[in-house]
Formats: sequence, C-alpha cells, structure tokens
Amino acid sequence: MSQPTVIIVGGGFGGLAAAKALKKTPAEVVLIDRTNHHLFQPLLYQVATAVLTPAQIATPIRGILRHQKNVTVIMGEVTGVNKDQKSVTVTDADRENVPIAYDYLILATGATHSYFGHNEFEEFAPGLKSLADAVSSRNKILQAFEIAEAEEDTSRHRDLLTFVLIGAGPTGVEMAGALAIFIRSTLKSEFRRINPASARIVLVDMGARVLASFSQDLSEAAKRRLERLGVEVRLGDRVDRIDADGIVVAGERIKSKTVIWTAGVAPSPAGKWLKVETDRAGRVRIQQDLTVPGHPEIFVVGDTAAFEQDGKPLPGVAQVAMQQGRYAAKLIHSRITNGKQPAPFRYFDKGNMAVVGKGFAVLQSHKVRVSGLGAWLTWAVVHLQFLATSSLRLAVFLQWVWTYFTGARGSRLIVNHHGSPPAMGVQDIPNKSAVA
Amino acid sequence: MSQPTVIIVGGGFGGLAAAKALKKTPAEVVLIDRTNHHLFQPLLYQVATAVLTPAQIATPIRGILRHQKNVTVIMGEVTGVNKDQKSVTVTDADRENVPIAYDYLILATGATHSYFGHNEFEEFAPGLKSLADAVSSRNKILQAFEIAEAEEDTSRHRDLLTFVLIGAGPTGVEMAGALAIFIRSTLKSEFRRINPASARIVLVDMGARVLASFSQDLSEAAKRRLERLGVEVRLGDRVDRIDADGIVVAGERIKSKTVIWTAGVAPSPAGKWLKVETDRAGRVRIQQDLTVPGHPEIFVVGDTAAFEQDGKPLPGVAQVAMQQGRYAAKLIHSRITNGKQPAPFRYFDKGNMAVVGKGFAVLQSHKVRVSGLGAWLTWAVVHLQFLATSSLRLAVFLQWVWTYFTGARGSRLIVNHHGSPPAMGVQDIPNKSAVA
Repeated sequence: MSQPTVIIVGGGFGGLAAAKALKKTPAEVVLIDRTNHHLFQPLLYQVATAVLTPAQIATPIRGILRHQKNVTVIMGEVTGVNKDQKSVTVTDADRENVPIAYDYLILATGATHSYFGHNEFEEFAPGLKSLADAVSSRNKILQAFEIAEAEEDTSRHRDLLTFVLIGAGPTGVEMAGALAIFIRSTLKSEFRRINPASARIVLVDMGARVLASFSQDLSEAAKRRLERLGVEVRLGDRVDRIDADGIVVAGERIKSKTVIWTAGVAPSPAGKWLKVETDRAGRVRIQQDLTVPGHPEIFVVGDTAAFEQDGKPLPGVAQVAMQQGRYAAKLIHSRITNGKQPAPFRYFDKGNMAVVGKGFAVLQSHKVRVSGLGAWLTWAVVHLQFLATSSLRLAVFLQWVWTYFTGARGSRLIVNHHGSPPAMGVQDIPNKSAVA
Repeated sequence: MSQPTVIIVGGGFGGLAAAKALKKTPAEVVLIDRTNHHLFQPLLYQVATAVLTPAQIATPIRGILRHQKNVTVIMGEVTGVNKDQKSVTVTDADRENVPIAYDYLILATGATHSYFGHNEFEEFAPGLKSLADAVSSRNKILQAFEIAEAEEDTSRHRDLLTFVLIGAGPTGVEMAGALAIFIRSTLKSEFRRINPASARIVLVDMGARVLASFSQDLSEAAKRRLERLGVEVRLGDRVDRIDADGIVVAGERIKSKTVIWTAGVAPSPAGKWLKVETDRAGRVRIQQDLTVPGHPEIFVVGDTAAFEQDGKPLPGVAQVAMQQGRYAAKLIHSRITNGKQPAPFRYFDKGNMAVVGKGFAVLQSHKVRVSGLGAWLTWAVVHLQFLATSSLRLAVFLQWVWTYFTGARGSRLIVNHHGSPPAMGVQDIPNKSAVA
C-alpha cells in the first residue's frame, strides 16, 4: 500500500512552512508553484529601490527542500481542483491541465494586487507582488532619472521626477521611505544636470492614517518621519483616475510617469476552484482546523483564506501564513500516523513592524509600542532571521552593512528584459501575480 | 570661450577607457549609452549558467564615472551622425532624434550577434551579448529542468534536457564547460524524477577546431577537457536549420528546446551612420591614429572598427577596445592642450585565455602556452582585476569562492520578466544588442 499523497499548492510562506513541517510524515509530498523560487515578499520594496538584488530575496524552492526526500517540487500553475476525484489540474510550459491526485490538499496560493474594480489602472500603476514587478518598478524609477538627465529643459525635471505611491500600508510606507533615501543619498553625486532634490514623492491613501493597522501614535510617528524625509503624504482622498500622465486625486492632477500601486490585494482563485463559500473579498472561509467545510482533506492557509479569531479576520501577513501552514501539516501528520490531533488553530500575534527610511521603524507587539532606531535594528534582525536560507541571510546582511555605510546599492541596473515568451502551445502563465 | 565637447558613444570597454583617460582634459565629455550600465561581457556566460547575478558583472556607468566632473552620462540611443554639422542624433525614452553637437567624436558602439544572413535563426537560438540575453538563457536552461521534472514519462527527458551551443569560440566553449559543471554538481541532489546525467550538451562549429584563435595544441587540450566533462563536440559541419524542435546539422536532426547562438558577431551600424568605407563585415576602416579618413575629429574604436596591424585585422576582444579607447583619448587630449601627439596606435597583445569548466583553462601569450589549473587561476585573477569597480571585484571573488566550495550558485531564479514597454511615442529601443 503506497503512502498517501499531500499536494501543497504554493511555495510562499504558508506552503513552505507546511512542506517543512511534513518532514517526518510518511507521505509523498508534492509542492507545486508557478515560479521556481520562494520569494521573501517583505523585502520586495528593497529590490524596487535598488538596495537588494532579486537573488538576495528569493531562492529556488527545490534548493530549500533538497534534503527532504519525501518532497517533490514541481513548477507549474494549478488551474483547478476536482473535489470529487480528489485531484488538481496543473499546466506547465509543456502541457496543459494534467491531473495530479491527492489524499490531502493544502492550498497556499496567496494574493495578488487588486485595483478595486478599476483594472484599467493596472497599465499605468503596476503593483509590487513579484520579482518581475519589483524589477520593473526599479527600471521605471531609474529610467525616470536617466530621462531627466538627458532633458536639458530643467523646467521639465519636476514632472519627470515625481513618484506617486498609492496605498499607505506597510508596503507603501516602506517604499516611500526607501525611495526618499535613495534619491537623497546615492543619486546626489552622480547627476550633472538634475538636482535630485527636485524629485517629489507623493504617498496617497484614501484612509485617514498611514499604517492603519498600527496604533494611532505609531501611525503619526511614521507620518512625521516620512514628512521629514521629504515625502508628501496625502490622506483621506480617493484616487479618481490613473493614466499615462499621472493621477487625479480629489480633483487635483498630479503629473507623474512613475506610479506604483500598493493599495489593495485580492486573493488567488482558490475559492473559485473549490466552488465553496468565500468572504466578500473572495477568500475561502475555513473552519477552526483550517479545512473547507465538508472536505476535511482540503486545507486553505494564508492570504487566500478567511479565518476569524475573536470576531476579527486575521490579516494577510507572513506570520499568519506560516503558523497556518505548520498547523495544517501537523494535523495531516496526526491523521496519517493516527496520532493525537492538535487543538483548533489559534494565531499567536507576535506583532507588526514597518521601516521608514534609514534608521527608523515602528514596532507594535501587544502592549509594546516603539519607534525609532531600536525598532529599526529589531526590524533588521527579525527580517534577517526569517529569510529562508543561511546564504540569503549572510548576503542580505552584508549588503545592508555595505549600503548603510557607503550608500552603494545592490543593483542599479536598468535591464530591458525580453518579455517571457508564450509557453509552447499553452496560454501564457500570467507573470504578474506571485503565488504566496 | 567654452571648452570643446567630446562625445563618446558606448559605455563598454572602449568607451569607458576613453572617458577615464580624458579625466584631466579641459573638455566637456558626454558619454552616451543605450543602457545605464557597463557590462563585463566576458562573464556573461556565468550569468547564463546561474553562477553570477547580473549585478555582479554590471554596474551603472555614471557610478563608475561619478568623480569625473567633466563627464556627463546620458542614457539614450544614437540614431545617426551628421559629419558636416558635427552632431549626433540621440533618441531616448522621452524624445526622438535630438541633435547633440561635438568637437570630437569617439564611436565605441561594439558588436551584436550575427546569424550570417539567417535571421530566422534568431527566434530559436538567442545570442549572448547582453544581460537580457543572459537572463533569458538562464531562464530557458532552468526551465528545461523544471519541465522535465514535471514530466513523468522519462523517455522524454533526454529531448527536454538536450542543450545545443552553436559556435566553439571562447564564449561557446566557456558556456559548454560551465553548463556541464552546473548539471553535474548543483542539480544532482535537487531533482527526484530526472537524472541530471541524462542531460546532453552539444557544442557545434563549422570550423575544424574549438577555440580557433588559439594554437592547435591548446585547441586540442580544450576539446579533450570538454569531452571529459561529457560535452559532445561536433566540428566541421554547418548548421542547416534551427527551428522550434532543435537543429539540423549535416543532415542530422538534434532535438532540443534550448539552443544558444555564440557563433558570429556583427558590428554596430557606425559605418552606416558615417557613410564611410567598411570592411566586408561592416566594420569601419580606420587609419593608424584610429580616425576616419578625412575626419580627424572622428575616432572609431573596438569591435566596430577594422584596424590592420602587421597585415592582420585586430580581433574583437576587450583588450583591443580598451587600448584603442585610451589612445583616442590621449590623442584628443594632446590636440586640445597643444601637447605632443602620440605615435601611431599599436596594439600590445597580452594574450588570450579561455576557461573550460572548473579548475581548467587554456592560456596563450606570445610564446607561452599553458593549460590546466595554473591557467585557470590566472584566468580568475585577470578577470577579477578587470572588473570595473572594487565592489564588483569583491562580490565576484566571494561568489566564486562560495560556489567553488559549496556548489551553490549566485542566482537560480526563473523570473518571467515583464517585457520592456514601448518607449513613450518612440519606437522601441532594441533590447537584444549591447553597445560594446
């Protein structure tokens, strides 16, 4: 009698945590991801601002799991789930819709960015959820400076050097701070015609606060810090329009060629595949043991799941995905080995952090609220710790030390990449969304 | 009276050497490159085989030249030269065909790959002249393994894992050797279904020897080494056809999804811009002082120039471009300062090297012919020395040491990049050719 098969869809925080926790389980584990790498999304904004290179925040999944002999890693895109037959259908660059059978299924497919119904915004305001996004944004930012340097009419410089970030959650705030540092420090000595100080960074959010998920006082500390860095913070106004010339917010036109969207996320299509109940955003409603009602063999974890705790939905952060992934694996292990089942899932909130430029962060954990240099050092240590491999930790640590002292960046290359070719005979694997 | 303007077109080896040599010249120097970075092309094959990351072999030109206050770096594509008006026309992402006047002009625009009239090959056999090429090749190579791993029918593995390199000059040989090492070492432990040993590398050349520019005995030593690494070397046969299924060489079909072209180069269009005499390949015939006949203010250096010494044309290698770039700058300096003019240009050949896999290289310098480990260490030291900045030297050195001992690669990411968008209102800057 062969071992049961556990399929994990997604090699992000949730999927990877689940795979690792199945290390001693007598099962065949198949992890499917549409990319070949595990991406440390919290540091994507550092690729977009040229501090880190893609290889410093992403590493091949099969590399991370190479010592787990019960795990096979497949690069492909899951296109559907057949709950009755207990199989997923997978499409890769070579074949379409191949069914793979499972005994247990963990969907950890994450989220992509959402334009709240305004999909026409996407063409002018790309998101920041994948390496391709980050490199593309980096290209646009660097290119804006190159174009301005070539433009002898200095009155045009301000428009060319206006950067707009939409969404003042952690990603937008961190991006805005990093961009301000980038412009002030690295670029100052290298341009002859432009004054990098004439660059303008605008952070827009329709809510009343930056970092709305943090406490009021930390929100205000972060906002003050951003303003000291020269960032214009526009709160409480909705963006009406985004086009080739920039944005219109509360009736006012802000000209910009570089608009980046960090305002909303939408879950993966897991809910559609399963044809089960979802919340309003499309996330799959799961039970206290993270399974789908009526299907105890199907687990959904991370950004694509909706789990309520103490009357509130859990946020779409890495820690939730990791704890849920581990839990799902433990429950599967106990079922396969007929061991003791764990208690219902409960998320342990270790806290929230966000960095604002250099040497300043805000940190909130239960009753602790800290801002400043100490929070920043803590932020650095925690992020280093959670990078997936020791070689990444070393690489990022060295890069940060080097950049901190010299201002030199990890990668300031503008590379006009060949767009990914259509897969052979198969419709394109969409390249903008990352599987969580 | 304002200073004279020297325009340098191209930020590769020739252009950069010229710019640096103009450091003390009382002139305004404008360096124009279609990318923002200086690329160390000799190590491109290491990006394609995932040893190094793009940022380890390329660095922003304006970063390298930031301390030279008389140099302005512009990112744009030169579209033509007006010899009578003494101006070049430049197109960038923002504007088309803007004229920029010069008093002296140095064209260092390099070469791109040539398909000897068979441009239809390009779609299936990309070249290796730019970072975009290298990342694209790396993606294809890694993806071939991913597809094979997902393919349960193992009889299909060999076709999926056949890699064909066309052209057995230094680039092809180095690529073949590196690919063999990559497959044998790194991939062995990470795949469950495929046996990396079933991969096949075929190196094809219509000439009779690999490394034809080296001596006979070194050619043979390199060929033997390649064969020991498991590379099939096919010499003396022309490639008749390249298509989606692979190649046909001397009537025999070799199935492959991953064909890379390193067989021919063609110079940049400098000759067409200048409307002057070129050699059969299209390179500009220059005089003993590197100027264009009848135009002592126009210099052409590097791969795009044809210079005969002792009855033979100089090869298209980095050393030639660097020495010529420096010479052109010295001559311009002497004219501007009314100083002593240098003697006619003479290339000093320091020798040739090529590495074949790990721990083996061939080295030829005047009467010295060496192969093996010593040559390999020399190769490493020399390449490190010539990287453009000390931070790159350190980064590459550390990466090589790490990879040598652990087999871990610099970057094994498959990133499906967004293709570069069309420049605003301007026809695409072609992204496959590198300016030398």
